[in-house]
Amino acid sequence: FQGESHVLALDLTAGKVAPLPVPASGYPTMTMDEQTALCAAPFSDPAFNATIRRRGVRLDDVACLPISLGWYGPEEDGGRRLIKSQCYSTEGTANFYMRPIEGLTVLVDMDTGKVVHISDRGAGIPIPAAKNTDYRGAANDDDDGTDRFGYQTVRAPSMEPAPEGPGFQIEDGHTVRWAGWEFHLKADARAGLIVSRATVQDPATGARREVIYKGMASELFVPYMDPTEAWYFKTYMDAGEYGFGLQAMPLVPLNDCPRHARYMDGVFVAADGRPYVRENMICVFERYAGDIAWRHSESPITGMDIRESRPKVTLVARMAASVANYDYIVDWEFQTDGLIRIKVGLSGILMVKGTPYSHMNQVRRNEEMHGTLLSENVIGVIHDHYVTFRLDMDVDGADNSFVRVDMARQDTAPGESPRRSYLKATRHVASTEKDARVRLKLYEPAEFHVINPTKKTRVGNPVGYKVVPAGTAGSLLDPEDPPQKRGAFTNNQIWVTPYNKSEEWAGGLFVYQSKGEDTLATWSERYVCVSTKTVDFMVRKMLAV
Amino acid sequence: FQGESHVLALDLTAGKVAPLPVPASGYPTMTMDEQTALCAAPFSDPAFNATIRRRGVRLDDVACLPISLGWYGPEEDGGRRLIKSQCYSTEGTANFYMRPIEGLTVLVDMDTGKVVHISDRGAGIPIPAAKNTDYRGAANDDDDGTDRFGYQTVRAPSMEPAPEGPGFQIEDGHTVRWAGWEFHLKADARAGLIVSRATVQDPATGARREVIYKGMASELFVPYMDPTEAWYFKTYMDAGEYGFGLQAMPLVPLNDCPRHARYMDGVFVAADGRPYVRENMICVFERYAGDIAWRHSESPITGMDIRESRPKVTLVARMAASVANYDYIVDWEFQTDGLIRIKVGLSGILMVKGTPYSHMNQVRRNEEMHGTLLSENVIGVIHDHYVTFRLDMDVDGADNSFVRVDMARQDTAPGESPRRSYLKATRHVASTEKDARVRLKLYEPAEFHVINPTKKTRVGNPVGYKVVPAGTAGSLLDPEDPPQKRGAFTNNQIWVTPYNKSEEWAGGLFVYQSKGEDTLATWSERYVCVSTKTVDFMVRKMLAV
Repeated sequence: FQGESHVLALDLTAGKVAPLPVPASGYPTMTMDEQTALCAAPFSDPAFNATIRRRGVRLDDVACLPISLGWYGPEEDGGRRLIKSQCYSTEGTANFYMRPIEGLTVLVDMDTGKVVHISDRGAGIPIPAAKNTDYRGAANDDDDGTDRFGYQTVRAPSMEPAPEGPGFQIEDGHTVRWAGWEFHLKADARAGLIVSRATVQDPATGARREVIYKGMASELFVPYMDPTEAWYFKTYMDAGEYGFGLQAMPLVPLNDCPRHARYMDGVFVAADGRPYVRENMICVFERYAGDIAWRHSESPITGMDIRESRPKVTLVARMAASVANYDYIVDWEFQTDGLIRIKVGLSGILMVKGTPYSHMNQVRRNEEMHGTLLSENVIGVIHDHYVTFRLDMDVDGADNSFVRVDMARQDTAPGESPRRSYLKATRHVASTEKDARVRLKLYEPAEFHVINPTKKTRVGNPVGYKVVPAGTAGSLLDPEDPPQKRGAFTNNQIWVTPYNKSEEWAGGLFVYQSKGEDTLATWSERYVCVSTKTVDFMVRKMLAV
Repeated sequence: FQGESHVLALDLTAGKVAPLPVPASGYPTMTMDEQTALCAAPFSDPAFNATIRRRGVRLDDVACLPISLGWYGPEEDGGRRLIKSQCYSTEGTANFYMRPIEGLTVLVDMDTGKVVHISDRGAGIPIPAAKNTDYRGAANDDDDGTDRFGYQTVRAPSMEPAPEGPGFQIEDGHTVRWAGWEFHLKADARAGLIVSRATVQDPATGARREVIYKGMASELFVPYMDPTEAWYFKTYMDAGEYGFGLQAMPLVPLNDCPRHARYMDGVFVAADGRPYVRENMICVFERYAGDIAWRHSESPITGMDIRESRPKVTLVARMAASVANYDYIVDWEFQTDGLIRIKVGLSGILMVKGTPYSHMNQVRRNEEMHGTLLSENVIGVIHDHYVTFRLDMDVDGADNSFVRVDMARQDTAPGESPRRSYLKATRHVASTEKDARVRLKLYEPAEFHVINPTKKTRVGNPVGYKVVPAGTAGSLLDPEDPPQKRGAFTNNQIWVTPYNKSEEWAGGLFVYQSKGEDTLATWSERYVCVSTKTVDFMVRKMLAV
């Protein structure tokens, strides 16, 4: 922490007091009270109200959302907490996201609630129509088996537990037990949900074996791909800026989770220190999707009449965060074979841009739209979603190593074989943090193992888990672009760092308006020996065109 | 067909008689009768029997499997149909795959059934023990909620249809209707299952709109990565050599498919021309996995109390092919939002290699094992699975084009924006087959659209489907390696070719012992204009280390 100020933090794992460095920039996650207050802030400014009236919108029909503004240099920063408001017309629809008052950006001081600056470059852009934008089922269902757009509605089969009842238990409200698994599950204001102390029972000895000490979503990065005045700053960090857990709303029984799910509340702290409850924020259920866990049939050619098949039943812990328009569905799925799958689903509503165009025949050839014309006066803007998870692995204890198994072509020697080539696996144990950075390459495939070198299988291989990053994409932004520096944890798909209490959040501890000097990219520049380690990996990237 | 012999084939789609070229090499798919006869063939050879006895195995305890031998030059070929037998000890286990008589390869003439050559280089390699290899549930289940290895067994929740009953119908045994979808479904000896004439109802007009004319698994390529005498030739083409449908066994109700699935038989032809029935080869069911089709909740900051969520219900058509040890589970899943997902699951048993080693401490440093020591005397050999699907797309009719949408970094001009860069999408319509080859690049991402340029949406975009290849890997073998020439359809992840009756199978019409001169790689060398087109794409690759 090279001369920086720091606070002391008790490192409970190591059992000693360790200094926790404070980064040179950035502010804490916004509270919900702040976000609510910021929705109203622009309306106290007469100039703002005049602008709205000039756009032909009644003030009563306007909803403004607080949009984190990233960090684009000290001239924008001014040493204070700032936010930009994006406003919409709510007239005629619950889906105001489809009715942007385009080009209007209101800069607000977060501490005083005062409007600092108004930018309006959208005077010529109509507000898209409200017609057919309401997504609510109650407004849409007809009696003839179709919705009001004519689409057939389907009846959902139900997922009933076995006659003996569900196969999982939740003890003390947090400890989940199922099929040999045991783990602690809790809601978290920033990470959403946290799985900790996940252990599995060894069937041979009956002993509990450690797998994960702590696992959670560590940061999200959502850069939009439009460099113009009203859009360039839209490069969200949904966990560190908005609170991935703060935005997780109550789950809807039967629709968000199946009939026999059990629910868990979140308890968070308001700006004034009072606790409040977010009901039904997490659900837990046994899942049977009609899938097969394992099967084998013998071919009749062997004369053996064998048809073995086991249905696949898993346990799911779920939450859904609604960060303004977008809904992220996060599932932690536990399998009976020891596999843990983290799955992120994207749902909700696009953040769209208003445009004068109502048909593609109005668009000039090669005109840069920054997206696709989805409807009259509505563009879906190109953007990415990166979700990074931090896994503090403890495979059979804390003494773990990170192994990269490279798969590369090996040419045969002349005369060695009728084959010219084959694939050869080479193991490499990471020795430093830098050495353990993984930037995936499609034609240089590799596997990634977290092993315990001190524990061996019966035939002498180290015990371990394989880490499989599903996000086979990387950010293409200029590494020196301000948002990419803040989201530098997306430069690689996997990072491995030794345990450090101050390195829990991939984008840094204080993300709001941070410059990006406290991310995984900075930490892993050091040449620290990687023994006890945490693994950060990106699970998903999506492009919407 | 440059001077080659050819047969005539009626091209039903175009309604005219077209010549069908016959490739210069290769034989048809083996029949089941042949495969059965080949299991017994080695035992008629006294030298083979003597070899088995020398290995200390009773002839009654031996099972031999017919292993397609690829093509490795004319000296191996000899102008006749050949196969190599791999034998196992069945003593003490139903899982003979775990008991290879390693190093013993028996070359058999497929037409005469006579042994041509015996190679035995495995005299020093013990046959792995039978203990704990039986996978059958009946042999394993204990009464205390665990199996005989001590693993907890889980009770499966059941998936019950809605009280009104299942939401799909099957008419005339083949026409499936569900939620606006209609398609024809049938079993095929080579492809496994074929989906054809898939249409979806337009909710606005009630008209049926075409999506896919015909879709099917076109070829599989499974190269093992061991160049030694008993393994180098193990480079299977599971569809063209063995028959992906011929190997699809009856599905096990409740375990392979949920309670209320409906089943469809396959009808195939035996070597003597008689038809036979493969019962319950395909199942169709409505699937509810506890997932969410779409959701949105409003944050309390907007003051709007909205929590909308729709459960995700899909329709699945499934088959499971057991190509000797491996079981492939193929799902075609239809969604209410128009998406079709093709999913391949790998199950069954590894093809393993015998070894003298029973512990890793016996292995020399850097010794090439070609895999992992899984158990005493058992190596799991590194291999790939490539599954290629052919989609004859008819999006709103046959007049379709293939569009590549490249996503690339665009740097901003100085002073244009506080942002230095953004992602820009550029559309490129393929004009030739060569132009339409797609070799995925991780840091040059793209989307792939099949559009109908003559049909536009309300705002003037062409209607289309997005093709999303899930197999983000490519073969690393030397392109001139004989198996890679035969499996050259894995050189790219997507190929697009105009409709041609003789180009239905990615690895060629006659694959057995083919040299690889009749694959997608050859066809797409031509500069044919791509208008009506078929899309071939690889869905999955897996590496087992």
